[in-house]
Amino acid sequence: MLQNDLLLRALNGECVSRPPVWMMRQAGRFLPAYQKLREQYDFFTRCQTPELVAQITCLPVDVLGVDAAILFSDILVVLPAMGIEVQLIEGKGPWLVNPVERPTDTDRIRVPDVSQSLGYVFQGIRATLEKLDNRVPLIGFAGAPWTLLCYLVEGKGSSSFEKARAFCYHYPAAAHDLLSKLTRTTIAYLQEQVKAGVHCIQLFDSWAGWLTPEAFEEFALPYLQEITTTLSAYCPVILFPKGISFGLSALANSGAHAIGIDWTISPNQARTLVGNKLTLQGNLDPAVLLTDAHTIKQHTQHMIQVFGVNRYIANLGHGILPQTPVENARIFVQTVQEYTPEALSTKS
Amino acid sequence: MLQNDLLLRALNGECVSRPPVWMMRQAGRFLPAYQKLREQYDFFTRCQTPELVAQITCLPVDVLGVDAAILFSDILVVLPAMGIEVQLIEGKGPWLVNPVERPTDTDRIRVPDVSQSLGYVFQGIRATLEKLDNRVPLIGFAGAPWTLLCYLVEGKGSSSFEKARAFCYHYPAAAHDLLSKLTRTTIAYLQEQVKAGVHCIQLFDSWAGWLTPEAFEEFALPYLQEITTTLSAYCPVILFPKGISFGLSALANSGAHAIGIDWTISPNQARTLVGNKLTLQGNLDPAVLLTDAHTIKQHTQHMIQVFGVNRYIANLGHGILPQTPVENARIFVQTVQEYTPEALSTKS
Repeated sequence: MLQNDLLLRALNGECVSRPPVWMMRQAGRFLPAYQKLREQYDFFTRCQTPELVAQITCLPVDVLGVDAAILFSDILVVLPAMGIEVQLIEGKGPWLVNPVERPTDTDRIRVPDVSQSLGYVFQGIRATLEKLDNRVPLIGFAGAPWTLLCYLVEGKGSSSFEKARAFCYHYPAAAHDLLSKLTRTTIAYLQEQVKAGVHCIQLFDSWAGWLTPEAFEEFALPYLQEITTTLSAYCPVILFPKGISFGLSALANSGAHAIGIDWTISPNQARTLVGNKLTLQGNLDPAVLLTDAHTIKQHTQHMIQVFGVNRYIANLGHGILPQTPVENARIFVQTVQEYTPEALSTKS
Repeated sequence: MLQNDLLLRALNGECVSRPPVWMMRQAGRFLPAYQKLREQYDFFTRCQTPELVAQITCLPVDVLGVDAAILFSDILVVLPAMGIEVQLIEGKGPWLVNPVERPTDTDRIRVPDVSQSLGYVFQGIRATLEKLDNRVPLIGFAGAPWTLLCYLVEGKGSSSFEKARAFCYHYPAAAHDLLSKLTRTTIAYLQEQVKAGVHCIQLFDSWAGWLTPEAFEEFALPYLQEITTTLSAYCPVILFPKGISFGLSALANSGAHAIGIDWTISPNQARTLVGNKLTLQGNLDPAVLLTDAHTIKQHTQHMIQVFGVNRYIANLGHGILPQTPVENARIFVQTVQEYTPEALSTKS
């Protein structure tokens, strides 16, 4: 039995006394203890060694007291399993040796037996669960097909992934073939994560917002829906389609338990688009954590006030910034955990 | 008298037989003739030499036959006039020697006498008008205050300008002081452009979309409105608030003649938010121009069909990408110029 099941209760729409809180990228680069491990082990060693995965995943639970752990891993780990070599250059990001440039390049992308090729992830989950010892739930995750296609085609990070967009316009059949392989792989990968014991999963469509609304409907939405419909039979699913505004309404009936929103959409707009049956997650601008205690508290309390306590998971609107002081992250987490509507009304 | 006044007629809401077309960043990096000048002269020499400004501004009119010229310059030219040294590192972008980091740093930002410090821009406009010889209208432009603040604080380009966002949250009074100085400078700068002869102006709020809706209302909108209200008494004003969705409706009553939209919002959504009294400009995904003739024609015709011929200026949803083949840009321009609703219905 979980000692703190606030996240799962919020996902199921149960009444809670205050919202659960965790932060995207909480198990990573802003934590000094992580930086030390980074000096000792390269990225893939950190991802592929169950003991290190468990240690890094638990760091923010130990250090900040967040209400959920999210597995330390990377959305790109599925690519090597599918036959695509990914190098990770520290400080520069991912780099693909042979990106997909022409339709025929999709032939060399295979749908793998994830239980074998990604076995280290599931071992990492089991090691983490042991270390977590039922303190908080563990969130599993994967990248959404469109976001994975971005890296497959672009070959590296990009400010707006124009090569990936052009590939979809230019070669729609090849794009759908690729997206279909990514979808089958992702479903199997997430099912294995659930079997290994994660309590819920988040699907990151980090670059959904770079698509036109029509291209989102064609190249992102159906695959998000397919994964969510399948997975939501096994565990709660959180969708994070970053940069999407109007398109949010189409996701309301995907079977997802929650939709994560970034800071560029207001809680009220999101609620209007998504309706009252789903939980919302987000959306403090991560830049707020670069300011001071007073500003962080003020913005965080205001955010909860607008979202409301129920059907809500407090989080940032995107990953925590690497230069965030640990103390500021702690103030954010504590402000959520100490939130009571009464306390707010007497303070303001 | 202008030989081709289609742009001005579209801005004034007059009926036209087909929409005018131009492309953001059309006078620049994708043109081989521009690349040659780039090898000979550094960026500031290109911007500050009236003959070069005239030559570069006219290139896309000569080479592609666009319906409007936009002055070759840069939104950052106002910063040196305000006391901030800007270096431009080729291939890397702008770099500020002393960015604004603390509230007291705003003291060294001055509101200049633009007629003196930016005289070379107005000379460039006069030289361009002579070379254009009334073939098409000339668009002047400036950066919006929030977008200029992004560079002032960040000190360089950025994928999401988090330091600038944090500065606004942390030091709102200093941010408003800075935005106010930028607004006064921009109004004077654009008024001088109009005096020098530009036919209309575009205000680029390229990074508006990185703000929360509340921060957009506080740190961007009032300044956009002040500039637009003042300038629209002199000439038509096009606002380009990139990345804004819901916020578009607040701009409908700013006095602007047109609002430019990027590719992530649909023409119908934009029309609903902006209403029928303004002209819309945009919004082909620039990545479409990286594909082939058939795909470019198809997407361009579909775009015009959805926007409609009237109260519409065909353009890209952001600047043309440097790697765009000239022939593809030409196909885009020609497709707009050959557009007739009849031709489309017999083809499709």
